[in-house]
Amino acid sequence: MTLRSFPRFITLEGGEGAGKSTVLAALRAVLAETGDEIVGTREPGGTPLAEQIRGLLLDTHHEPPTTDAELLLVFAARAQHVRETILPALERGAWVISDRFTDASYAYQGAARGGDANFIAELERRVVGIEPGLTLLLDVPVDVGLQRARGRGAVDRIEAEREDFFERVRAGYLSRAQAQPHRFRVIDATQPQEAVAAQAVAHLREWIGRQA
Amino acid sequence: MTLRSFPRFITLEGGEGAGKSTVLAALRAVLAETGDEIVGTREPGGTPLAEQIRGLLLDTHHEPPTTDAELLLVFAARAQHVRETILPALERGAWVISDRFTDASYAYQGAARGGDANFIAELERRVVGIEPGLTLLLDVPVDVGLQRARGRGAVDRIEAEREDFFERVRAGYLSRAQAQPHRFRVIDATQPQEAVAAQAVAHLREWIGRQA
Repeated sequence: MTLRSFPRFITLEGGEGAGKSTVLAALRAVLAETGDEIVGTREPGGTPLAEQIRGLLLDTHHEPPTTDAELLLVFAARAQHVRETILPALERGAWVISDRFTDASYAYQGAARGGDANFIAELERRVVGIEPGLTLLLDVPVDVGLQRARGRGAVDRIEAEREDFFERVRAGYLSRAQAQPHRFRVIDATQPQEAVAAQAVAHLREWIGRQA
Repeated sequence: MTLRSFPRFITLEGGEGAGKSTVLAALRAVLAETGDEIVGTREPGGTPLAEQIRGLLLDTHHEPPTTDAELLLVFAARAQHVRETILPALERGAWVISDRFTDASYAYQGAARGGDANFIAELERRVVGIEPGLTLLLDVPVDVGLQRARGRGAVDRIEAEREDFFERVRAGYLSRAQAQPHRFRVIDATQPQEAVAAQAVAHLREWIGRQA
């Protein structure tokens, strides 16, 4: 059983403070030029139930989930997201752009928390079943990213982790990108935001051109 | 990797309207006679986070989870329950009595919803890792159980399922009991409540006697 790849399914990945929000806005503007329907979404989340699960995952005030519970909550939200939001949109011909997807689980729940990558791969095959055609990875050194993220004010449960956690997240993402170069474009996100966005836009335009 | 069995871990299983509450109270009274610590708990639930997940699972007012999301939510709650409540209690020598445990997933998410039993078994091995020494199954024909359950008033998302769903739940439970006779005791729960409770108590007393 392999994953079904959708050319119109685009994901944006990156650690804390990589500048995903600015890039997302630029990417949506480019997709809007196609005249096609665009669905912008995010993980964990993307459906009312999945957003409630996100709340349980990021909450800092209550009992934190164990490593296993975190992994299963993330995939429960993703199963719901794929079935209720992403697949219906792709099947009616829309572009779907998601702020994070399964690669984030390999980086956060796998590389950073020590979850078994084989188990993550099995959850991916069994309850996700699809993968993006194009994944843009905003890569930034941990100290730079954390400084940006923490400058934004209140931190959630994940953002409050220690630096070595985010070093493992970064390494996890880069290893995914290296293993799947046909799908990943890695962007140096230490550059000024406009330069990062411009590079992301160039990758997306090239990708759209290839689909025509 | 096999499951670790704990003699002091007792579970009570059964479909809707099987009369679990009355039996639970009787079993707790028997365990109290031992003078040991007793932890009474339930699934889905048993920790603050797991109870919040229970809310997502049983809620009838919002988006229902897909089959896969339901399965992963149940196991996320169970992973948390085992690690935060059940194992610590067993490790300090307490008796733990749980209103439902993993057998319920084989019956509800597996047999009734059509989830793959191999996948459920893998989740059990990976994130649960333990099994009860003794499981009492209250068995009752579906029409009798539903009449009792619905007589209680408001029904949750699971209780609102159709009769054939509960027929599959019942068959799923009986097949688990047949496959693991060393651990299961099946009680005919069409009997008057006092008779059901007396039979459950007799099984538990016999079990406690064997541990001495």
